[in-house]
Amino acid sequence: MSAAGSRETFPGTGDRMTAYQTLEQRFARLAALEGAAGILGWDAQTLMPDGAAEARGDQLAILRGLAHEILTAPEAAEDLAAAERASGLESWPAANLREMRRAQAHATAVPRDLVEASSRAVSRSEVVWREARRDADFARLEPHLAEVLRLQREIGQAKGAALGLDPYDALLDSYDPGMRRAVIDPLFADLTSWLPALIARAREMQAARPAPLPLTGPFDVAVQRELGLKLMEAVGFDFTRGRLDISLHPFCGGATDDVRITTRYDAADFGRALMGVLHETGHALYEQGRPAAWRHQPVGAARGMSLHESQSLIIEMQACRSREFFTFLAPLLRAAFGRSGPEWSAENLHALNTRVAPGFIRVDADEATYPAHILLRYRLETAMIAGDLAVRDLPGAFNDGLRELLGLTVPDDRVGCLQDIHWPSGAFGYFPTYTLGAMAAAQLFRAARSAEPALPGCLAEGDFGPLRGWLRSNVHEVGSLLGTDDLLTRATGAPLGTASFRAHLEARYLGDARG
Amino acid sequence: MSAAGSRETFPGTGDRMTAYQTLEQRFARLAALEGAAGILGWDAQTLMPDGAAEARGDQLAILRGLAHEILTAPEAAEDLAAAERASGLESWPAANLREMRRAQAHATAVPRDLVEASSRAVSRSEVVWREARRDADFARLEPHLAEVLRLQREIGQAKGAALGLDPYDALLDSYDPGMRRAVIDPLFADLTSWLPALIARAREMQAARPAPLPLTGPFDVAVQRELGLKLMEAVGFDFTRGRLDISLHPFCGGATDDVRITTRYDAADFGRALMGVLHETGHALYEQGRPAAWRHQPVGAARGMSLHESQSLIIEMQACRSREFFTFLAPLLRAAFGRSGPEWSAENLHALNTRVAPGFIRVDADEATYPAHILLRYRLETAMIAGDLAVRDLPGAFNDGLRELLGLTVPDDRVGCLQDIHWPSGAFGYFPTYTLGAMAAAQLFRAARSAEPALPGCLAEGDFGPLRGWLRSNVHEVGSLLGTDDLLTRATGAPLGTASFRAHLEARYLGDARG
Repeated sequence: MSAAGSRETFPGTGDRMTAYQTLEQRFARLAALEGAAGILGWDAQTLMPDGAAEARGDQLAILRGLAHEILTAPEAAEDLAAAERASGLESWPAANLREMRRAQAHATAVPRDLVEASSRAVSRSEVVWREARRDADFARLEPHLAEVLRLQREIGQAKGAALGLDPYDALLDSYDPGMRRAVIDPLFADLTSWLPALIARAREMQAARPAPLPLTGPFDVAVQRELGLKLMEAVGFDFTRGRLDISLHPFCGGATDDVRITTRYDAADFGRALMGVLHETGHALYEQGRPAAWRHQPVGAARGMSLHESQSLIIEMQACRSREFFTFLAPLLRAAFGRSGPEWSAENLHALNTRVAPGFIRVDADEATYPAHILLRYRLETAMIAGDLAVRDLPGAFNDGLRELLGLTVPDDRVGCLQDIHWPSGAFGYFPTYTLGAMAAAQLFRAARSAEPALPGCLAEGDFGPLRGWLRSNVHEVGSLLGTDDLLTRATGAPLGTASFRAHLEARYLGDARG
Repeated sequence: MSAAGSRETFPGTGDRMTAYQTLEQRFARLAALEGAAGILGWDAQTLMPDGAAEARGDQLAILRGLAHEILTAPEAAEDLAAAERASGLESWPAANLREMRRAQAHATAVPRDLVEASSRAVSRSEVVWREARRDADFARLEPHLAEVLRLQREIGQAKGAALGLDPYDALLDSYDPGMRRAVIDPLFADLTSWLPALIARAREMQAARPAPLPLTGPFDVAVQRELGLKLMEAVGFDFTRGRLDISLHPFCGGATDDVRITTRYDAADFGRALMGVLHETGHALYEQGRPAAWRHQPVGAARGMSLHESQSLIIEMQACRSREFFTFLAPLLRAAFGRSGPEWSAENLHALNTRVAPGFIRVDADEATYPAHILLRYRLETAMIAGDLAVRDLPGAFNDGLRELLGLTVPDDRVGCLQDIHWPSGAFGYFPTYTLGAMAAAQLFRAARSAEPALPGCLAEGDFGPLRGWLRSNVHEVGSLLGTDDLLTRATGAPLGTASFRAHLEARYLGDARG
């Protein structure tokens, strides 16, 4: 089949393929291109020698460009229209067609030269950001970030016009299909109304208790890796369809049937890699658990970044920072590192892993203060996209917001608004999904425990079977058949809300020690 | 630029691009696709989890298919014709245009359905071959190999018709541009006339001397790896543009500015990996040394498999099995493995690495008997492509030939005609390049030593500078500017011949111990 996807007879039958069948072939080709790009991107972060970076950029650019052509070909539009007019598709194919249309609409909404201008602006901006952050020099980044923002606003407007959405909602939709400001605003307003007080109260209660006993390294990195692999296996990672490696910034990537997660080891602190591996394994479980029959089709894709983050956090935060899990983990750690003593008790280890400590850096934030970093970023980026906040005013607005939400005074922009790559790389509409994910994780875990009352007891024995089974049925194998809120309603009885998240934080950080 | 390569204005000047400039853009895109495929192929042999194989097959198939479309687009043919009509190209661009035409001619010669039929036949054949070889069951492979051969003959005829060549020459041309049976036949006839006697004489002389002292393992694999890296560095491998890993079958692959070689370790015998790494490093030096300004264009490519093999063998065989090199290597090995004793002398190690011992397996053959395996395969595959040898008669013809050339009687087809993957995977026209490469290696090394009389002395000190510098100027940086024979004539004073190879084998295996 040519890149243009001309209608060819369906092999073996002599019959003409339907428009829908032709689209399935087109999207299978897109999935193959996406998989190729995924492995090349993973390789660039893990193994690629420095001198290969420019050529790798060329390779990824051509794959993206060819995918864009395949998705925006006139024949694709014709086939979509024909398939949408036809009748008789069952639920999965019908949902697949819906997702095909969504992908094509996003791709065709933005003119090619705007895509290329944005890509060039982002490349320049990312390079300058690394230096600006290192030198705490916002003025250096400002013109580049302003250009990136200008182009993202144009993209948002173009997509919005095509999809019938406001610019921010259009950008958000590409990260989290169906998510809207109208959904997020009330949820985040609710969060803002009680989170600061919860954080303050948690810290009071923490200060009133004896501090947990610290652990002293070093902790052999080879042992850390073996531990990580063992936990991945316990959680349910399929090593015939994935692997664990090292990169500067941990992530979950790769391709279908080839899910590659990474971590980074610190010989002084094994907890970072351990919890990081559990986090990425949550993501990986989702990817590996997608509906097999549809895994090369759009309806087989994971349903957006909020649900994806709910899967990483349901493992890392809900399950693996529970008191029950530390009953299982503590002896494993003692044996692996050859340690003993009161600081290695399950109780103490759990306390060390459930501290509340406001800080400047989002990626280092604890479970309770993390959402404050997101509330701030959501406020700022919605304002920037709306044209209500100029880039030159970003540092001031950021610092004011952090003081308000966490009571901290930013000493320099390196640990302030320059800390994250998202905006310099053009990712507006991504930040809220972290906390929407945390909320969904709590909501799903609550429902899982209702359905599987033995779940906490199983975690105390390192048995993830019940949790994994429930997640497979309720999330992973649904793929993109349902939108996020329909999936949550089916799984938990209600669309996304804050109640479960609040109850969870109160139980873990304000309640009895069993949280 | 679209996949079809429409003529767009040359960025920044407002002028229309010439047909040649448009072609350069088209071929740069092809190079990026080729690089992507190269990394994915490398990954499949080194790191990919088993469950990802099918999806990887899809990814590679789409990359090949898209590259084929770009190369065979009507606009490419139009631009080639226009560029060929135009005048004023300097030597490098003119050679680039010549190579572009050659690539396009090969690609357009074969109808799409023939390409696909051949690809499917090869996939099936390769799977059956592994089982057939394991069970020494030629009858099982026969129908599949017959189908592969049938399709390769058709491809040879199609290419031959388009290129004005006989079918075998057309197939050969895709592995070794410009190489022809008319060149190979006299060279191989000459080889056949003296090689068996040389082998017999070498074995007589060997038997008349005390046998070299064996080495006893085990040899720590981590130490072997460090040794390999150190030697790669000495030879001149650039680790900012490449890496060393492990695979089942060692190879040199990857992409431009990202040359990835592999090896395989045997704790009982460090020599296999050591010489293997040196062999692949020779290939890598060629790839890394290609003319930088043209490295994404056809004229910047290495000039065919014979020259490529000359580069691996000039390092492994010419340089690194010389007596001088063992003066450098022996103390390195003693220190690395913590050994001493007479068996670790440079003299003894050199003797161990220059044994002549006819065997059944080509890949295990020593330098003197290896060409006999190639002479046999060349004879058989030219006959198969000409229709003069039926697949059903292959085992008998193979066994007769091996008895004639090496005096060995094949006990079963697993160590006979089933040992190599080449024919089952459709590679007809590849085998002769191994020995053409060995001949070219000897011829080039002789010329290098003439130009750099200090070369052997430098090797005795582990200094590859003079050899590397000579190879860069005379081979690597020439890319495909010149055809193989013109390159050899420029570098050595004569086109490819057997004289230097014969002189080398006689000196090393029949001469004084300094060979």
